[in-house]
Order: sequence, then C-alpha cells, then structure tokens
Amino acid sequence: MKLIARQRCKLNLPILITAAYFAALPTWNYAAEESPVTIPIHRLSLDVATKAATAAIEACRKEGVNVTVAVIDRGGREQVVLRDTLAMPLTLEVAKQKAYAAMNFNTPTSQLESRFTSPFSPGKVEGIVLSAGGIPIEAGGTIIGGIGVSGAPSGSMDEKCAQAGLTAIIDELEMSL
Amino acid sequence: MKLIARQRCKLNLPILITAAYFAALPTWNYAAEESPVTIPIHRLSLDVATKAATAAIEACRKEGVNVTVAVIDRGGREQVVLRDTLAMPLTLEVAKQKAYAAMNFNTPTSQLESRFTSPFSPGKVEGIVLSAGGIPIEAGGTIIGGIGVSGAPSGSMDEKCAQAGLTAIIDELEMSL
Amino acid sequence: MKLIARQRCKLNLPILITAAYFAALPTWNYAAEESPVTIPIHRLSLDVATKAATAAIEACRKEGVNVTVAVIDRGGREQVVLRDTLAMPLTLEVAKQKAYAAMNFNTPTSQLESRFTSPFSPGKVEGIVLSAGGIPIEAGGTIIGGIGVSGAPSGSMDEKCAQAGLTAIIDELEMSL
Amino acid sequence: MKLIARQRCKLNLPILITAAYFAALPTWNYAAEESPVTIPIHRLSLDVATKAATAAIEACRKEGVNVTVAVIDRGGREQVVLRDTLAMPLTLEVAKQKAYAAMNFNTPTSQLESRFTSPFSPGKVEGIVLSAGGIPIEAGGTIIGGIGVSGAPSGSMDEKCAQAGLTAIIDELEMSL
Amino acid sequence: MKLIARQRCKLNLPILITAAYFAALPTWNYAAEESPVTIPIHRLSLDVATKAATAAIEACRKEGVNVTVAVIDRGGREQVVLRDTLAMPLTLEVAKQKAYAAMNFNTPTSQLESRFTSPFSPGKVEGIVLSAGGIPIEAGGTIIGGIGVSGAPSGSMDEKCAQAGLTAIIDELEMSL
Amino acid sequence: MKLIARQRCKLNLPILITAAYFAALPTWNYAAEESPVTIPIHRLSLDVATKAATAAIEACRKEGVNVTVAVIDRGGREQVVLRDTLAMPLTLEVAKQKAYAAMNFNTPTSQLESRFTSPFSPGKVEGIVLSAGGIPIEAGGTIIGGIGVSGAPSGSMDEKCAQAGLTAIIDELEMSL
Amino acid sequence: MKLIARQRCKLNLPILITAAYFAALPTWNYAAEESPVTIPIHRLSLDVATKAATAAIEACRKEGVNVTVAVIDRGGREQVVLRDTLAMPLTLEVAKQKAYAAMNFNTPTSQLESRFTSPFSPGKVEGIVLSAGGIPIEAGGTIIGGIGVSGAPSGSMDEKCAQAGLTAIIDELEMSL
Amino acid sequence: MKLIARQRCKLNLPILITAAYFAALPTWNYAAEESPVTIPIHRLSLDVATKAATAAIEACRKEGVNVTVAVIDRGGREQVVLRDTLAMPLTLEVAKQKAYAAMNFNTPTSQLESRFTSPFSPGKVEGIVLSAGGIPIEAGGTIIGGIGVSGAPSGSMDEKCAQAGLTAIIDELEMSL
Repeated sequence: MKLIARQRCKLNLPILITAAYFAALPTWNYAAEESPVTIPIHRLSLDVATKAATAAIEACRKEGVNVTVAVIDRGGREQVVLRDTLAMPLTLEVAKQKAYAAMNFNTPTSQLESRFTSPFSPGKVEGIVLSAGGIPIEAGGTIIGGIGVSGAPSGSMDEKCAQAGLTAIIDELEMSL
Repeated sequence: MKLIARQRCKLNLPILITAAYFAALPTWNYAAEESPVTIPIHRLSLDVATKAATAAIEACRKEGVNVTVAVIDRGGREQVVLRDTLAMPLTLEVAKQKAYAAMNFNTPTSQLESRFTSPFSPGKVEGIVLSAGGIPIEAGGTIIGGIGVSGAPSGSMDEKCAQAGLTAIIDELEMSL
Repeated sequence: MKLIARQRCKLNLPILITAAYFAALPTWNYAAEESPVTIPIHRLSLDVATKAATAAIEACRKEGVNVTVAVIDRGGREQVVLRDTLAMPLTLEVAKQKAYAAMNFNTPTSQLESRFTSPFSPGKVEGIVLSAGGIPIEAGGTIIGGIGVSGAPSGSMDEKCAQAGLTAIIDELEMSL
Repeated sequence: MKLIARQRCKLNLPILITAAYFAALPTWNYAAEESPVTIPIHRLSLDVATKAATAAIEACRKEGVNVTVAVIDRGGREQVVLRDTLAMPLTLEVAKQKAYAAMNFNTPTSQLESRFTSPFSPGKVEGIVLSAGGIPIEAGGTIIGGIGVSGAPSGSMDEKCAQAGLTAIIDELEMSL
Repeated sequence: MKLIARQRCKLNLPILITAAYFAALPTWNYAAEESPVTIPIHRLSLDVATKAATAAIEACRKEGVNVTVAVIDRGGREQVVLRDTLAMPLTLEVAKQKAYAAMNFNTPTSQLESRFTSPFSPGKVEGIVLSAGGIPIEAGGTIIGGIGVSGAPSGSMDEKCAQAGLTAIIDELEMSL
Repeated sequence: MKLIARQRCKLNLPILITAAYFAALPTWNYAAEESPVTIPIHRLSLDVATKAATAAIEACRKEGVNVTVAVIDRGGREQVVLRDTLAMPLTLEVAKQKAYAAMNFNTPTSQLESRFTSPFSPGKVEGIVLSAGGIPIEAGGTIIGGIGVSGAPSGSMDEKCAQAGLTAIIDELEMSL
Repeated sequence: MKLIARQRCKLNLPILITAAYFAALPTWNYAAEESPVTIPIHRLSLDVATKAATAAIEACRKEGVNVTVAVIDRGGREQVVLRDTLAMPLTLEVAKQKAYAAMNFNTPTSQLESRFTSPFSPGKVEGIVLSAGGIPIEAGGTIIGGIGVSGAPSGSMDEKCAQAGLTAIIDELEMSL
Repeated sequence: MKLIARQRCKLNLPILITAAYFAALPTWNYAAEESPVTIPIHRLSLDVATKAATAAIEACRKEGVNVTVAVIDRGGREQVVLRDTLAMPLTLEVAKQKAYAAMNFNTPTSQLESRFTSPFSPGKVEGIVLSAGGIPIEAGGTIIGGIGVSGAPSGSMDEKCAQAGLTAIIDELEMSL
C-alpha cells in the first residue's frame, strides 16, 4: 500500500498542472506501472463530517440566517445533513446538489457557474446545482467528498459558510493523509 | 412560549433589513440566547386556505379565464388545489411549483425571474417555477405558506389572481398572529 | 345541455379576442350564469385519431423521413402513438411532449419557442417540449387534443407533417361539433 | 350529437350486464355502427366537484378526524384536493391514488383489495392504491371521475366520507346527464 | 452474414430445449465459434406492427370492450400504442408493461404470474406487469418484440385480444424470417 | 393563541381514546367551535433534533453497528440525517422512509408491519417503509415528527436505537409543550 | 432480405445529401415499394463493443485521466459501461447521455451544442447531454449505436477518447456490413 | 493509518460473530478508541472489476445463455456493466439491483429472498432486487462492492455465473488487503 501512496502523489502533480484549466480529477496511470488490485478511497468519519457541518451551520447563524448543510462522501452519498430550524425545505435539495457538484468537478461551485452555460451541457444532468455554496473536501491531492450550503441570502454567503465548515476540519484532515 | 414570540419579533426586524436584497428567510439566532426546544410553525386552517383559493379562482373568472390555484403550507405540502372546470392539466403542475417557489424564497415569483438566470442555478431544482403567479403567504414577519396560480393568458394576470386570494385572508391572518 | 352548448359558443368568441396575444384557453364564466353540473369534453374517436396519425406518418415518408407521431386527448393522455420503422427512440418522448405542450397552450409549439425564454419559466415543467412540431387539435372554438411529430431533419418539417395529420380530419371534425 | 347520446345509452346497458363480474368499463362498439368523430366525456364543473370534496371533509370532521379528499376527472387529473388542517402529508398521495384507482376500474377500491393479490399484477403500476376509500363518480351509466379519501383511522371510514361526498352531488348529477 | 444466420439457427434449437423450463432467451455461443462483429435484430415494420395492434383492438371491440394495445420492439421501445376511445388512462401503462414483460421473458405474461411470487423478485423492477395480456412476438426461434393489451374485464380476455393481434401477422412474419 | 392551546388539549384527549385502535392522528373539530385562522405546528429546533440523532447513533455504536438515523419534521422534511462512517448507502433511504412512515401513522413502524399486508394498500405508496426502526416524535398529544434508524442486524435493534434517540429528548420536549 | 439490403443502400444516399444540414436519420420510403415485414437492426456483439470501450478508456489513460465510457445499441440500451477506477460517479450519467444523444441524432454531440439553444427545445428531454464526448457508431450508412465519454478535463478530450474507441472497431465494422 | 488497519481487523471479528445471524455490516466502534479522521474504503481497480465481469459473462456463455453482469463499488456506483449480445434490456436493471442489494446487505441475494417477505419491508425500497444472482465482493472482512447477474433461465444459474466472476479475482483480492 505504500507503493500506491507514493505513486499517487507522484502522478497527481503533473496532472493537476496540465489540466488545471478544468479542475482535473486526479487520476491514475495504470498503464505506466503494474496495476493495483484495489485502491483506497478516503472517507471522513461521521464525527469529523459532523464537525464540518456544525461549523457551517454556526457560521451562517452568526450571519443571522438558517441554512441547510450537506456533507457527502466520494461516492456521492450523504454522510451528514443538517437543516437549521427555520431553513426552507428547498434548501435540502439545493445543499445536497451543490455538495455533489463540487465533489464531482473537484471545484467550488462558484467557479462552475460560468463554465457550463449551454442549456444541455453536463450541468443539465439531474442532481447537480452549479451555483456558489458547494466546495470539494480535498486534502493532500485527494478528493474525499463535498460540502454544500443553501439558504443564505446570497450564494457567496452560502459559500462562506461551507468554507467555514471545511476550515474546521482541514488541519486534522491534512495531517491524517 | 411568550419569550419565543418576543424573541422572534425582535430578531426578525434587523434580519429583514440587512438581507432585504435577497428576500431573506427570517431566521433565529439560537447562539445568542438559550435555544428553544421546539418552535411553532403557523399553518392556515383548511377553511382559511380554501377561502384564499376560492377568491383566486373567482378573480380569474372575472377576467374570463379558468385557472388552477394551489395553496401550500410551510412544509411545502398542498393544502388546497382547485382546478377550474376548463383549466388545462399542465396548470396543476405550474400552479403548485409557483406556490412552492414563492414560499421557499419568501418572494413573489415575478421577482425571481430575473434573479436566477444561469441555467444550472438553484432555479434548476425540480419542483419550482420562477415565473409570475406565485406569492408567499406571510404575516407579521412570519412565512406561513404560498399560493400559486396558472392558466391565465399572462403571468401578471396569474399573479393578480393569486394576490386576490391573499387579499381575501390577509386581515384575519394579520390579526391572528 | 343545450343551454350549455350555446353558452360556450357565446363566451368563447370575446375571450379569444381579448386574450389572443397569449393563445388563451377558452374558458367559462360560471359567475355570469347558473353553473352547469358537468360540461362535455370532446374526445376524438380512436378511428379518427388514427387517421390523423397515419396521415402525419405518410406526409413525412413522402419527405423521405421516418418520424414518430403522437395524438393526445384533452386530458393529455395518449390516444395513438406511431413510431415509424426506423425512427429513433428519442422521438417517442419528443413527439408526446410537443403534442402535450401544443394542447395545453392551445398554440402550435413553433410559436412557443420565443414565448418562454427564461430557463425556469413554465416551459421548465417536465413533460413539455416547446419546439416546432406540435399543434393543437381544435375545432369550432373547442380544444380537443394535440398532435406532435418528431424525427424530421427540421422542426418545420415536423410541423408540416403534424399539420398534414390535422388536415386529414379537420373537415369531419368541424362538421361534427 | 343526439345520435351519439342515444347510442351510448343503448350500448352501455348490455355491456354492464355481461361484464358485471369485473366492473367493466362501459365501452363503445364502433364496429356495429358508423363511428362518431368525437365523443363527449363528461367532467364535473369545479363548483360541483368542490361541493363533493367539502362534504367528504365535513363527514370526516364529524367523526373527529382530519382527512385529505381528492376529486379527479375522467382523464385522471385532479380537480379538487383538500387536505384538512391536521391531515398528514402522506394522505395527499393516498387520497389521489385511491380516486384514480376507483375511476380507472369503475369500482370502489374496497372491492379491489381482494381482486388484485399477485404482487406484480396491474395493481403494481405506479399511481394507484387499492384500499378502501376511493369510489368512482358515475351517473347514468357514465363514468365521470373519482373521489378518494385518506387519513381516517380505518379504510371503511375513509370510504364512508368519500361516499358522503358523492351523495352530496349525485342527485343533480343524475338529473344533468 | 450468411454464416451468422446459419449459426443462429443451429444454436437456438438445443438452447430452447435445455432451458425450456424457464422460457430461456435464445442466446449465442460466441465462445464456440469465431465471433460476429454485429448481429441482426429483427424489427417489425410500422405497417405490420399497426396491423397487429388494430387486430387486437378489433378483437376486443367484438367482445364489447375498449382496450389499449401496445406493440414494442426488441429494444423495448414502443412502436404502436392504440388506446380505444373509452379505454381508461391506466390501461396505457398496463398494456405497455405487459408487452415489455412478455418480450423480456419471451413468455406470455399469463405464465409469469405464478413464476415470480416473492415481493422483491425481478418482477418488482419498474416497468413490468406480470399479468395475463402480454405475449411475445416471436417467429422462427427469434424474439422480435411484444404485444400487450389492457382494459378488458379479465386478463384472459386481454390475452385473447393480444393473441388475435399476433395471429393477424404471424404467417407473413414466419415466412419473412 | 391561548384559546387555541387550550382547545387543542381539550380535544385531543377524547379523540385519542375513541380512535386508539388505529393510532389516530389527533385532529381538530372545527365544526364544534369557531375556526382558528392558523394553528401552530411544533417543530424541533435543530439543536434538539441533533441531540436525538446523535443519541441514536451512539446507542447503535454501543451494539457494535454503524447505522443511519433520520429525523423529520411534521411536514415530512429532513431535519437531521447522520450516516455512521461505515453504514451502507441503502440505509439512507430506509431510515428516512421509516421516520416518514412512523410520523404519518403516529405509530412505531414495528406495529405497522402487520397492519398493511395487501400488496397495494397504502403501504405501497412511495416513500414509506413499514418495518421496525421508525418511531413518531410525539409529546403532550402532539405529533412533532419522526425518527428512523436503519443498518442494524435486526429491525428490533434499529428500533431500540431510535428509541434511545427519542429518550434523549423526551423530557425537555414534554416540558416545553 | 437481399432486396431490402439493396433498397436501404439505394435510399440512404439521397436522403443523407438533402438532409445533411441536420444529420438526418436514414429512413425508409415504404410507400415507394412493397413494405418489408421486418427490417434488420444491426447490433454490435458484446466482444466488439467491449473492444471499443476499452480503447476509449486507454486513450484517456494515456492523457492521464480516468473516464467513464458507455456503448449503447440502436435501441438506446447499454451494452458496455466502464468507469475507470477514479472516475467520479457523475461521469456515469454524463457518458450514457452523450452516447444516447449522439445515436439519436446520428451526430457527434460536439456538433449538437450549437444546434439546440432554446431552453425548452428537444435537448430538454431527459436522458440526453448535448456536449462534446458522444459520437454515433455508424458504418455503411447504417446507425448501429453510440459511444460516450465523460470525465476528461475538456469535452474535446472526451470526444477524442470516444473517437479512439470507434477507430478501434471501425474497420471490421465496415467490412461486416 | 496503521493503527486504523489494526483496529479494523481487531474489531470486525467479534462483530461478525455476534451479528452473524443477519449478515452484519462490519462496523467501527469509535467510542472505544480515539476516532480516526478518515477511513479507507477499498475499491477494485477497473482492470480487476472487468476481469470479474468478463468471467461471469463467460461462465454463462458456457451454459449457453447471454446475461448482463454489473459490478458496483462500496458507494453503490457502477464500475462495469456488460450486457451480452442477446441479453434482454430488462437484465440491465435486474443485474444492477442484485449487485446493489448484495453489497448493502453483505449477503448473497439468494439468502435475502426469505429474509424480507412483508411487502413493505426494506426490500420495498427502489433499487434492490432480492433474488438469486447477486453476491457481495468481500475479502479479509472488508466489503468492497457487489456483483450481480441477470438473464439466465434460473436465479441459481445467475448466481453461479456471479460466483464465477468473484472466483476469478478472489485470490489476488485476498492477497492485496
């Protein structure tokens, strides 16, 4: 497994550079070396995911707004969903879809708004919202999941709260990988 | 419960001011005070909801058109749906989605048309139409639900009929809260 | 029932004039007179609906293309669907949705393309395509259903074939109402 | 149109007799006579549909329960949906599906429970619940729609309230056809 | 392509025998011989599919009932859907799902009712009804599609009408393959 | 509002008694008294809902299993969803549906398994699972929401964890109403 | 069957010329000649479809990216789906929808982006993405299926990999038809 | 990360023993020790997943049947889907749902048929088929994904082919963990 870990770091760097325009998904060049049987996909523990979600809720409460926050894993499945007491039902769907979009494109959704503009581009696919408020959870070049926020008066405030959620866990996350 | 009531009124005012640009959802700053166990969500009685829906139908009949009107509660669930005799089946879906959008954004849908223009912004999420004809049901700074109308020759006439529905109940609603 | 029939004719004319801008749905002003218990909704017999669909298929065959044609009733339910031998599977969905749109708005879909342009206007609702190829089935001021065609190299050819379908039945339809 | 009306009455009777075992849908033997161009499908006016729905709500209130009632037309589209103030959200879906089932099979849903027992029989199709509480709206041998109730402590009480809704309009309905 | 044709015939026979218990899908033993690049899937022309559908409608009209009939191709896509004038909207879904089930299992749906009885067996999958009224369209050991009927007072009458549809085309179908 | 509060308490008691057989939804007899304009629907604050969800997670961790827990409000909308680190994706759907079922029927789902046995009874409707693990959140005769757990080796352990979640908040909940 | 084969070739050529602007679906003019009973639809063998998919995966690995590739048949059904080890879940949906779009329009999806721009044109229909990365599988004037790729940093790289997949099989495909 | 690996092994054993009755999902007792930040979820490389899928296809070809095989990862997302040349479209859905069910319950689906028998138990949830043909991919006490097969004349043959798929990779899988 050590070999794999090194291999991943070695490969990710040039890929991130050449594909930086589009927020490339870090990938694995199996052809170049003997293929592994399995690879590890890192998933937040529930405890850490909840810490991030709670921090996002609190950051928005400080702004005086009730929001929904969703944290999803690398498979796109919900780990934590918290809807603040007065947040509207629609925020559930929007928060989840922002988190899912950010994870899939490994890019904050605020940067995806201008990237997909044709009405039937991949942004059309069900389950993703490309609007500020979602950010990928990523550490050490590894995508781990996504966090999305909905319900604030503006997308930039949604994003600020999502960022506060990520900030609350990024240090221990970086150190653990 | 009295404390809660006062607290809500006290908090809503500044929030509505600072967030007026986006039609902020009135929220609750739990951090600042001891948290309540439950909060009351106000729901129209069926009788009052029906009065609003009937007034909307009649306002549009006066214009010579048959429409559908939908009244939903704060959880986004239908309370009353009336489709006038000759209104088309599509008006069912459109009226419900306008009501749901207006409630979620606490804003008439006529004002949402220009707010969400990117094709994959939150307006994309299933279940909402951002087009004139939906208005929030709100009184005393509290969001109670939404009313939506579809089927008139123009969105502005849809909105006019929805407004007639709200007007029919607003006085007793304001006095009851 | 005779009173009803006269009443409908009398009312439809002025409504169609005042609301012509938007292709108003003919409606009924119950307030003005005693309300009927039921109203008759006219539905094509299967035989006549099939005649229309077959004429549309043949019109497109003459152009050298295989299309799908759908005929729906006033409730928006399919009466006839014919997919020509080599027409693609996607044409099934598109033909049905054009027919449904044309019926609901009582307007050829070619005229709806420019009417709904905001991405979250009623055109967003699932089940309708606003693109040339759908036309309402209407006679004597009464909306009876819709016919939609998909699969030709252009929307205008789709519409031409749909029109051929309607033309094949319009005379007997007009005479029967 | 007169010929049609007579033809329908003449034909419906023997059909109802021969097919009584299964609650046959009254049909039309086009082969036997010259085919009509259109046939009239009778639809309740909104006013009459609302009267039925209100009577069902009130009948259940007298039993001390809050229910949802749905009235649908012959195309299966909602005309009136009333959810009493405290009725649960699930009752919306159940009431609509009972009404739709009763209309489609022209049979009270209480009689359909034992008819479809295999897990993948037509009862499986989405949109129908085969449980007491739905009854067809039918008069003079003509199916006009369906009414469904959900939310009472038992299906038989749901059905009793639905029946109260139908009873409130059956006389004027019978006389009008 | 000649080799393929012979190969198919040679192989199908023993497979049908060994797997007859479950209505085996005729398959191809690529391992045993050089693999073809493509194989031909036979599809009814629209004209022949319509002939079958019309015969099914007429067979049920002779019984005094209005039904819906659906003919689908080997990819499970609708070729023809005819809903008789008074058939209920639910029959659309049921007829299609019977046709799709019969084609997929290459077995009349009347024989599938007793085969899948556990509630979460493959019969659970959306899109299939396992109840009399669907039969596969098959000739010369080749599955070509399916035909399904819904709306008669009993499943056996549905099946009888579907069979009448197949009978109307089976001879020319057998001769053409 | 005081009148309402007293009225509710007064009315709920006899209703719960007469309808105890089926876990009656507490309702409101508007006919008997002057109708209120709105009624208050009680919703847990996020903080209390999270306390319940966390207690359920921990109760199952003590049993050595990772589960998902969902808390929903009276409108059936998610307030908190926590999926423990190794819980399977399917547990998300099952936990939500148990919570929703328990709330709608105001009954633990373990008691609903034997109540709905016909395959097309209301249990068929999408969005509910009738299997042990869901319990209503109810206090002082008022239904407030539901809590559902999925992922334990048995439904009874799921229910035990859900009950632990409710136990963690029931005292402050009872006192607050 | 020989007549059919000749007939198809004879007809396809002029149609492709006159309708080249829109990438016409090759069709069959049954009216002009006696209609066939069935026509053959060519489907790739699994072995050849897998060869194409594998070549697409490898072409993208050489670029340092992990993608998903989907190959569908003429009925729009998946034959092969390969998601490379680190490709995101969203790429599954996007790859399938690009393949389906390319097949239905018999055109690379990169050329469809500018063709459908109105938000409610046929591009709106569920199941298709009109963005570079999908190409039809076609040989000898016959449409056989589609191949779609998603996950590369740009749509043009997706298309390049899809093209590599088609290139890997085009020679044997052309020779076999 | 080493601590984590040891911890997992140490904990899984007793859990599997105590919960063996129900095919317990191996879980993590965070309470007992300091909680990890992330845990590794093992995913097959595409190359190994394809090897398993191909072996399943070939095992069924040897039996003379064409099937679909699906391999999914621990997040329930497709990695490989292969539909053999003549397998029916329905097999796509069934194979995926068997794989997903087997993974979620960490149990062959053949053993789940008798476990969930009430019609509204968790087996009701959309996306799972509980019928022989799906088996979990598991090694060293770790669940990695699932493999499902559909299309053989019996579920036991489906399962035999799925098992052949797993057998083809189990040794290198066991050694790699």
